[in-house]
Amino acid sequence: MTATASETFTLLPDGSSTSALGFRAGALAAGIKPSGRPDLGIWASDVPCVAAGTFTQNAFAAGPVLVSRERLNAAPRAQAVVFNAGNANACNTTRGIADAREMAELAARKLGISADLVLVASTGIIGVPMPMDRVRDGMPRLELRPDGGHAAAQAIMTTDTRQKECAVSLDVDGHEVHIGAMTKGVGMIYPNMATMLAFVGTDATLDPAFARTALKRVVDRTFNMITVDGDTSTNDSCFLLANGLSGAPTLTDNSRGAERFVAALEVVCTDLARKMAADGEGAGKLLQVDVTGATSDSDARKVARAVVGSSLLKAALHGEDPNWGRVFMAVGNSGAQVDPNRAALWIGTLQIARDGVTTGAAADAARAQMHGDEVAMRVDLGLGSGAARAWGCDLTEAYVVENSAYST
Amino acid sequence: MTATASETFTLLPDGSSTSALGFRAGALAAGIKPSGRPDLGIWASDVPCVAAGTFTQNAFAAGPVLVSRERLNAAPRAQAVVFNAGNANACNTTRGIADAREMAELAARKLGISADLVLVASTGIIGVPMPMDRVRDGMPRLELRPDGGHAAAQAIMTTDTRQKECAVSLDVDGHEVHIGAMTKGVGMIYPNMATMLAFVGTDATLDPAFARTALKRVVDRTFNMITVDGDTSTNDSCFLLANGLSGAPTLTDNSRGAERFVAALEVVCTDLARKMAADGEGAGKLLQVDVTGATSDSDARKVARAVVGSSLLKAALHGEDPNWGRVFMAVGNSGAQVDPNRAALWIGTLQIARDGVTTGAAADAARAQMHGDEVAMRVDLGLGSGAARAWGCDLTEAYVVENSAYST
Repeated sequence: MTATASETFTLLPDGSSTSALGFRAGALAAGIKPSGRPDLGIWASDVPCVAAGTFTQNAFAAGPVLVSRERLNAAPRAQAVVFNAGNANACNTTRGIADAREMAELAARKLGISADLVLVASTGIIGVPMPMDRVRDGMPRLELRPDGGHAAAQAIMTTDTRQKECAVSLDVDGHEVHIGAMTKGVGMIYPNMATMLAFVGTDATLDPAFARTALKRVVDRTFNMITVDGDTSTNDSCFLLANGLSGAPTLTDNSRGAERFVAALEVVCTDLARKMAADGEGAGKLLQVDVTGATSDSDARKVARAVVGSSLLKAALHGEDPNWGRVFMAVGNSGAQVDPNRAALWIGTLQIARDGVTTGAAADAARAQMHGDEVAMRVDLGLGSGAARAWGCDLTEAYVVENSAYST
Repeated sequence: MTATASETFTLLPDGSSTSALGFRAGALAAGIKPSGRPDLGIWASDVPCVAAGTFTQNAFAAGPVLVSRERLNAAPRAQAVVFNAGNANACNTTRGIADAREMAELAARKLGISADLVLVASTGIIGVPMPMDRVRDGMPRLELRPDGGHAAAQAIMTTDTRQKECAVSLDVDGHEVHIGAMTKGVGMIYPNMATMLAFVGTDATLDPAFARTALKRVVDRTFNMITVDGDTSTNDSCFLLANGLSGAPTLTDNSRGAERFVAALEVVCTDLARKMAADGEGAGKLLQVDVTGATSDSDARKVARAVVGSSLLKAALHGEDPNWGRVFMAVGNSGAQVDPNRAALWIGTLQIARDGVTTGAAADAARAQMHGDEVAMRVDLGLGSGAARAWGCDLTEAYVVENSAYST
């Protein structure tokens, strides 16, 4: 990626999943969430799209995941995603699959398109059958609008405290192309795929193979590098829909604009990944961990993920406690090749450890680097040129409180 | 293991690490812990012992681990363990190794034995040099007594709220043999070896190879099956010392009494493992998870460890919230072979899921099974005869509070 960020894209103010041309969304309260908040929606393109998806690796993948994955495996095309919050439709086996199919059919009928073009995404409690009467009742009442992205982002929230949306525009061969996206977090978040629901819509024209590789590349560097609690959901799904309405020429792996598009896609997904980590259940701080000097990027990824995933380090972060031994403890558990005599650590701009031992930096100075909503750490392994970045959050009493009584 | 528990051993009331013949221990407050509590001790046999050890897999293994491992690799013999709490002597690289060696020399001088026969174990904060002046000052003042086990168990505590000791006697070819042990928990606990400090002393006579295999077999089924927070310490060490003072004949892998000895050793280590899980930092409940019906014992172990390790499930346990989908979520993330349509779940005696879906058991009835200090769950995968058991604890606000400010 040689283009600088500013050459690559323009951040759109008030961006949403419907920022690209020809995307609409609608949402309402169908009564799936006990709170009575919005919980059912459709996100759709006016015309069929090239589509790609990544899904949870959990062996108990939910009904909507099984149905969506099957459809994208059959053909890389889709025109809409029907989604709900309040019920994950997971651990419902055959009934769950049948209910997910019916949700797609209801949405297809509403949109006047083939059910094969509708993907399904659900989030919420596991192991409770989907209240299909409420879905059947709500679907016809949905109104899809070109400015409906924000409403959709709200309806997909579970324990999220804020909506998570981002959109950019970029130039592809003289054509203005848009990428608009939304996502939801915030518990059961651990990188072994997309780790959440994310919908990315673009009016670029994408070759199906390029859409797939671009999405996988970017997801591996963004959504798959965040950790909230180390638990991988049964429902993680990330969808990329490209409808070509910008009129820009088709991007393939070898196109001149391909790298620029991937870079812009990464900007969008990085923004959403950071927003998810920062809004992790009960989180008060975003933790960004850079790892350098690893023998490979793959080792650097292991280390970065281990550090942001350590319960002990996350608790220390909450207390702004520069207990740096916990960072090395996590590094040592990562499975990556390390030399205890060469590792170095920075918290913020302060170097805490060098050649594996303390620099003698004052605890107060280190603590000062942990104030604020965002804390940065860097681990240098001193072995090679492998690098990676990961995001996480602190572990707080609020996480425990929230997760002690979620189903009740 | 065909012998029943009662045939195998007798639990000794008031048992400790000095319950076996010829073991003594002493401890005092050397000023390593800021609290002024006891923090330095020696646990020793009157005569040299056959010895075996298991150690942390963390790549940043602490100085005392490196020194002890090296000694046991050189020869399976030891006579004493010098230990301290309040400072882990980890992430101190070469200085840490030198300090651990000096601790062994100081203890050897005190005992009048060769330093090669002294193992070292430290626990406490990482990345701070060991205050050797205090160790040098304290060591000569130690008094070792045959009833010193309890004092040693106290001195090794960090955030433990209670001492953890256990002893049994058993018959080996007409000779009464004793096994006495102590351990400390309770944070940075995750099974990838011994996950803590554990000292096991016996007056049985053990062949060195048998001592090693017996310890490994038992550790894999006990200490390696507990999880507190998924973080593996830099300092985990488990030592088995056998001094032969019972006069019983030497046990080898093929001895008639070998299985009985291993069974008794497992009883002791199971008791200590359960005590560690129950006393996990901030824990209010012990969780015992049985997995049956796996395609292999190895798969069953993966599933059991994944379930007791899930932050979300641990938080639900704290709230006595029968959010059973979190159990299957964890099972699905374990990497074991599963069939979502065949999995079954019991909480206590109540069956919650069958063939992958809810049995419709009432939430109140399920919640009632989660009252009390101990909660049992069983997952049956319905695939084969693999089985395993693991222990963990709930995730509470107190864990967060305790770990937000440990170093301060």
